[in-house]
Amino acid sequence: MTTRQTQTRILDTALRLFNEHGTAAVSTNRIAEECGISKGNLHYHFKNKNEIIESIFGRIVDEMNAGWYQDHTQPTIRHMAEMFARQVLLIYEYRFFYREMPSLLRDNDSLMQRYRDNRQRRMAALEEFFAVLDRAGALRFDGDSRLIKSIVHSTWIISDNWLNSHEFLGRPLDDQSVLAGYHLILDILGPYFVGDQIHILDESRAAIGRVIHARMEA
Amino acid sequence: MTTRQTQTRILDTALRLFNEHGTAAVSTNRIAEECGISKGNLHYHFKNKNEIIESIFGRIVDEMNAGWYQDHTQPTIRHMAEMFARQVLLIYEYRFFYREMPSLLRDNDSLMQRYRDNRQRRMAALEEFFAVLDRAGALRFDGDSRLIKSIVHSTWIISDNWLNSHEFLGRPLDDQSVLAGYHLILDILGPYFVGDQIHILDESRAAIGRVIHARMEA
Repeated sequence: MTTRQTQTRILDTALRLFNEHGTAAVSTNRIAEECGISKGNLHYHFKNKNEIIESIFGRIVDEMNAGWYQDHTQPTIRHMAEMFARQVLLIYEYRFFYREMPSLLRDNDSLMQRYRDNRQRRMAALEEFFAVLDRAGALRFDGDSRLIKSIVHSTWIISDNWLNSHEFLGRPLDDQSVLAGYHLILDILGPYFVGDQIHILDESRAAIGRVIHARMEA
Repeated sequence: MTTRQTQTRILDTALRLFNEHGTAAVSTNRIAEECGISKGNLHYHFKNKNEIIESIFGRIVDEMNAGWYQDHTQPTIRHMAEMFARQVLLIYEYRFFYREMPSLLRDNDSLMQRYRDNRQRRMAALEEFFAVLDRAGALRFDGDSRLIKSIVHSTWIISDNWLNSHEFLGRPLDDQSVLAGYHLILDILGPYFVGDQIHILDESRAAIGRVIHARMEA
């Protein structure tokens, strides 16, 4: 295997184990074992568990940026809906990070800084995207940038936390719960949709269906 | 000191230390020391740190219930606003619990169960309260109980998590941030207010002012 292939295999395996058991219960030795490589080989690529977690976070940021690059060229409600659909799916895929976020960030200053930078950049981009939709007449914020900021912030808090919220209510975590997180966000945005709201919500439900389908085929 | 006085002093001290340093950094010995009592005396009242945390959570539930008892007899927008104001202040007061919630709940099954029971009960009560306001014409949900459920769920996720969200954005935690959490919730509810929305928001800002003032005098 090339260096890149080995690193990819380590990160894929770590992600699966972290999602299943939580980061505290999974040692780097266990990850090496499941990869079929020696401890020494793993530590050649990643000094410790924190470095693995940071690299996985790097993937989250890369996926967000790739999605965003697609979206922002087409400021339509359908793209807004697909963007949020992709966001909740991404969170489901990397669920260990969102389940353990407070302790992971507090235990690792460099991860906290990267999370903060990414979030500030993405929230500003989202505000700008909403402002463009507003000016194009596709959302009804009437140029109220304070309100756009507030609503974007709320949708972000819900994205980051619906998964834990769901678990703490004792509900199972599956495809349906991904849709539940998505619907919370759509309901917050509903009052700012223009025209036939139900039609737009139906369209966006179809959009998330397409995204889930594409993910499962991948 | 009576048993009750000793227990109150232990819980007050633990709450202050947990808020300042986090639960992991504060031992029961340290709590005993700061209370000016022996380790043996502390362990006579609380077997371990988990029992202290559970008792502090009991206080949170008691305060929620006491507030709720006041509120639900007067289903008005002013009371709704005061209720959310009290909620964000309560979270600020017991901030260690909300900062560390995911790991505290996952590490303690009985605390998880109590959190879940309280939350299900409170969310159902909040949905009923909104339905009453809707029927009274004070909110505009047009009897859409699915939407009420969704919006209540979102306001709950924001209540539980705005404090961490604020910190992870690198913002200082003070009176202003309490107001920031409160405004996120009001902005989600804004579209469902009837009549002069700005007037209602002004009223509710005055309401939170009264609540903060009352708390600080206490």
